[in-house]
Amino acid sequence: MQVNEARFLSDLHALRQFGASGVGKGVVRRAFSEADLAAREWLADRIAGAGLAPHFDPVGNLFGLAPGKSLLIGSHSDTQPEGGWLDGALGVIAGLEIARAAAEAGGPPISVVSFQDEEGRFGVTTGSDIWSGKLSLAEADLFTDTDGVTLAEARQTVTGQAGEFLSHDRFSGFLEMHIEQGPWLDQSSERIGVVSDIVGIRDMRITFEGRQNHAGTTPMHLRQDAFQALSAFNTKLLDRFANVVTPATVWTIGHVSLHPNASSVVPGRVTFSMQWRDADLDRLGRMEQIIREVSDEIAGDHGVKAELSPVLGIDPSAMDDRIQAAFKQAAEEAAPGSWRSMPSGALHDAANMAAVMPVGMLFVPSIGGISHAFDEDTDESDLLLGLQVLARAARLL
Amino acid sequence: MQVNEARFLSDLHALRQFGASGVGKGVVRRAFSEADLAAREWLADRIAGAGLAPHFDPVGNLFGLAPGKSLLIGSHSDTQPEGGWLDGALGVIAGLEIARAAAEAGGPPISVVSFQDEEGRFGVTTGSDIWSGKLSLAEADLFTDTDGVTLAEARQTVTGQAGEFLSHDRFSGFLEMHIEQGPWLDQSSERIGVVSDIVGIRDMRITFEGRQNHAGTTPMHLRQDAFQALSAFNTKLLDRFANVVTPATVWTIGHVSLHPNASSVVPGRVTFSMQWRDADLDRLGRMEQIIREVSDEIAGDHGVKAELSPVLGIDPSAMDDRIQAAFKQAAEEAAPGSWRSMPSGALHDAANMAAVMPVGMLFVPSIGGISHAFDEDTDESDLLLGLQVLARAARLL
Repeated sequence: MQVNEARFLSDLHALRQFGASGVGKGVVRRAFSEADLAAREWLADRIAGAGLAPHFDPVGNLFGLAPGKSLLIGSHSDTQPEGGWLDGALGVIAGLEIARAAAEAGGPPISVVSFQDEEGRFGVTTGSDIWSGKLSLAEADLFTDTDGVTLAEARQTVTGQAGEFLSHDRFSGFLEMHIEQGPWLDQSSERIGVVSDIVGIRDMRITFEGRQNHAGTTPMHLRQDAFQALSAFNTKLLDRFANVVTPATVWTIGHVSLHPNASSVVPGRVTFSMQWRDADLDRLGRMEQIIREVSDEIAGDHGVKAELSPVLGIDPSAMDDRIQAAFKQAAEEAAPGSWRSMPSGALHDAANMAAVMPVGMLFVPSIGGISHAFDEDTDESDLLLGLQVLARAARLL
Repeated sequence: MQVNEARFLSDLHALRQFGASGVGKGVVRRAFSEADLAAREWLADRIAGAGLAPHFDPVGNLFGLAPGKSLLIGSHSDTQPEGGWLDGALGVIAGLEIARAAAEAGGPPISVVSFQDEEGRFGVTTGSDIWSGKLSLAEADLFTDTDGVTLAEARQTVTGQAGEFLSHDRFSGFLEMHIEQGPWLDQSSERIGVVSDIVGIRDMRITFEGRQNHAGTTPMHLRQDAFQALSAFNTKLLDRFANVVTPATVWTIGHVSLHPNASSVVPGRVTFSMQWRDADLDRLGRMEQIIREVSDEIAGDHGVKAELSPVLGIDPSAMDDRIQAAFKQAAEEAAPGSWRSMPSGALHDAANMAAVMPVGMLFVPSIGGISHAFDEDTDESDLLLGLQVLARAARLL
């Protein structure tokens, strides 16, 4: 089979017209929006034109099916409220082109998929969550977007075209190409990332309850200042984590809510988010242990009460060894010495698929590491290289 | 003259019926509320009954005037949204009792005052701000409360009874008794504080602008995390302030606003309040210098842009030496060895009066250091001791 680069680029640019933001190549195409539904209709037509069978499942995942058991290639075509043109669209159109080229060549059998609501208008990776069995449709139907619309309401618009959920057995594996969304490849001038693992995420909420007091009459040594407790917690954590983390480990305090949040009042309470990500399950656990120890120490040192919420999260997903080997061979052939093996710090549909079939992921560089923004972009030569590596790997598999 | 302790306590308890919260002795008596206006009517009656002339000025400050040039004693009778029964009410009723006792004894001439809106429904110490000339009535009339009501609208309810602003020359000095609102006297079992200075306050708003980014794909070493910048700023400030401050110096980061304040996003911006208080003008300036230096260092270390608002504030007010001496003598006579000289960390009407006449302040203990709360209280024996010290000092002056 021979992929057609011009046709691939033409389809990729055609897709970004659905929900074009008018700012650079930016796209606004939330799951189940008019733009998203129109894009899926267009994609279903392109699938049919490629000699594949379009199939919508009940949550709106769109497949282009080759006959018999096939390899599945794809990603998602919905976007963030202010999205880039590539993100998931790149992996969908690459899947379309490879499945089309394979159909033209009379094999191997390759199918394509565009998952629904990967960007989390309702849940997180909602479409692949449900198809993989991680989440039931009944549970997900109760999820609401920020305007209070439920998933059940949103998917009424597509029930007319929806068929059954497909059996996982129909597919021999899942390949997803995606922009990196981070700076590693761009900064090192490497052109392909072969994903080793999708990192696990741990999320919790911590509250320090001190004593609210007059900011003029309460001496420093008698304060039980919740903000000071948070600052000391953060500082101590930086120090303790140093012995445990790798350069790929990340952690974030991204949400802080101070009470009463007034300049003349010693803060009596703070609630904040604590999120950490790593590809190693054991390391995630050791970090949690440190967080608990440091919270206890801060509670003692600062006279505050520490309350820790249950820890939520998604476990790391290792990518399939055989698929990784095929990606590495294909990358080395197409771009000798210009690729690396790397974890994915972002969550992807591939993490759900890993629970039900062999999975592999491929990254191309994000210019400046930018994503989820109108100015997200990747050099055209890198897009084409990604397509070629993905097609080579599909042939090898 | 001889003060009547029973009459003083009776009036003090009578006043707390106006706006009684129903929770302990707590009071809800915001400036210009029904409860506040009724309390002022009652107070005007008690003033008239004491043989003094009631006088409302245009902003609602209520005086009880002795004939000729007199010493002025008082405080304020409005409260916080959830106020204690003593706070300013104590100083007003002590002033009433001493002025009444002096009138009964045929001298010395002593007047009483209850300032309006000390607790800042509209401004801060609004009534004494305006009378002292620090703020014009026209400017203040535009101030709004949290419901959008202007001071101009609120004081329409009292314009019928309002006379002129009084000349400051009418008064030889101003004495204010107040609860300490802090823990120093209560913790040391001392019963009287002679205020040396009312501390100055400096307030500013600092913004660190970093770069908002994906919390999964952005490595730690490439982040420009605004929260991390704030935490490092706070930690460094603690260290640098150590060489400059005294045990009476206080500083507070009480308001923090993080953007976009989401657990999965590296915070791109934080705006926070920085407030510091000290009785020494030079020290306030040195602290500001340190804040500016540390902001610059953090901006460099964390790749954020620091923006510092103009510094607002109130300068420290030294209390009059002759009045302090009279208070000390009276305190030593009434409670030998059980008093101390101390700064006031809270702002009071006396700070405004210090600009236009000799001023002195006296503190009695706050149980547990609690104020601006329904459970604010002081031992009755300390209330009576305060009254006696204030009366002795008035006689000495």
